[in-house]
Amino acid sequence: MKLNNKIQRSGILFVISSPSGAGKTTLARKLIEIDSNIELSISVTTRNPRKSEKNNRDYIFVDEKSFGKMVKDNKFLEHAEVFGNKYGTLKQPIIDKLEKGKDILFDIDWQGTQELKEKESKHLVSVFVLPPSTIELEKRLLNRAQDSKEVVKKRMSEAISEMTHWAEYDYVIINDDLEQTLQKLIAILTAERLKRIRQTGLNSFVRKVIF
Amino acid sequence: MKLNNKIQRSGILFVISSPSGAGKTTLARKLIEIDSNIELSISVTTRNPRKSEKNNRDYIFVDEKSFGKMVKDNKFLEHAEVFGNKYGTLKQPIIDKLEKGKDILFDIDWQGTQELKEKESKHLVSVFVLPPSTIELEKRLLNRAQDSKEVVKKRMSEAISEMTHWAEYDYVIINDDLEQTLQKLIAILTAERLKRIRQTGLNSFVRKVIF
Repeated sequence: MKLNNKIQRSGILFVISSPSGAGKTTLARKLIEIDSNIELSISVTTRNPRKSEKNNRDYIFVDEKSFGKMVKDNKFLEHAEVFGNKYGTLKQPIIDKLEKGKDILFDIDWQGTQELKEKESKHLVSVFVLPPSTIELEKRLLNRAQDSKEVVKKRMSEAISEMTHWAEYDYVIINDDLEQTLQKLIAILTAERLKRIRQTGLNSFVRKVIF
Repeated sequence: MKLNNKIQRSGILFVISSPSGAGKTTLARKLIEIDSNIELSISVTTRNPRKSEKNNRDYIFVDEKSFGKMVKDNKFLEHAEVFGNKYGTLKQPIIDKLEKGKDILFDIDWQGTQELKEKESKHLVSVFVLPPSTIELEKRLLNRAQDSKEVVKKRMSEAISEMTHWAEYDYVIINDDLEQTLQKLIAILTAERLKRIRQTGLNSFVRKVIF
């Protein structure tokens, strides 16, 4: 669906969180493909790149020292440590995009979401994606061939801990069907863009219509 | 799109307001046709039925005296006077439906919306539909063959007065394409149903998944 582009609006920070293995990354990728007005926030991270990952596309890969300097220089909107690695979102590019009415997708955990909420609550829309069951979740984690059983077990416990934070989110979706979950995410994004408070150009539009 | 019916949720009072002639009634009818979980609230009114209208289907038609008694007996969730006629929404059927997770569609003006908001704000989702221009609005009002020029002029002035209340609504849609507006209404309804606060069965679902 095409949105009415005549009305100016402010951008959305669209957060999708979920335990790893619940389909979050696939959903985020598909959403970006379908909707041309939202783009993925690229995080800065200290973790090692996986084989398929590219610097400046998937993440901005930096060492511990550089990350520490960015924290000290107050460059981050949010930053957190997950599985022993550090992740952060740079402030300036986000602010620039919000002002232009661009939406930014965040694939972050509950810690990052809490930090974003504290700093940019006006623009934040948060969605928690739940797996339909833990059996399903374990199956999905086991299917990731690159991880050892030890890692799966650790991730499973982390996943359950992540899931306890669902109640801090605006929307909750149970992902029992990837296509339906994607449609629900699109519906949320469409609706949020139609919220009166985001359509900053409405007042002047109505004045033109009435007078 | 099918919603996840496993999770219990509370119903929504879905209000669509707009100046007459902006397409509200057509949109409401189409939405009811498409979505089986929402039904139209049938108002009580003192106005005379139009040729096409049926008692208990389009309105509950009553005389002034009966309407007055209903007000006195506190039977109404909201009531208002529009174009010299009285309209009201009965309380009890609405409360019963909300508890069962049924959504109810309201085709009411800003006065009725304000009253609903005061009494049932937790369940209320309000959408204001704007015409793309006053020229378009006048054209639509003139196309209603049953109204005289005098009536059109009066309605036009009432329409403009109604439009000044757009800023009291949660969502605002500019109806420059009926099909797109309908899709936007469906997106809003879909998103609102996914709000955490409405999904009253989530807590027990997550407990079952985690433990």
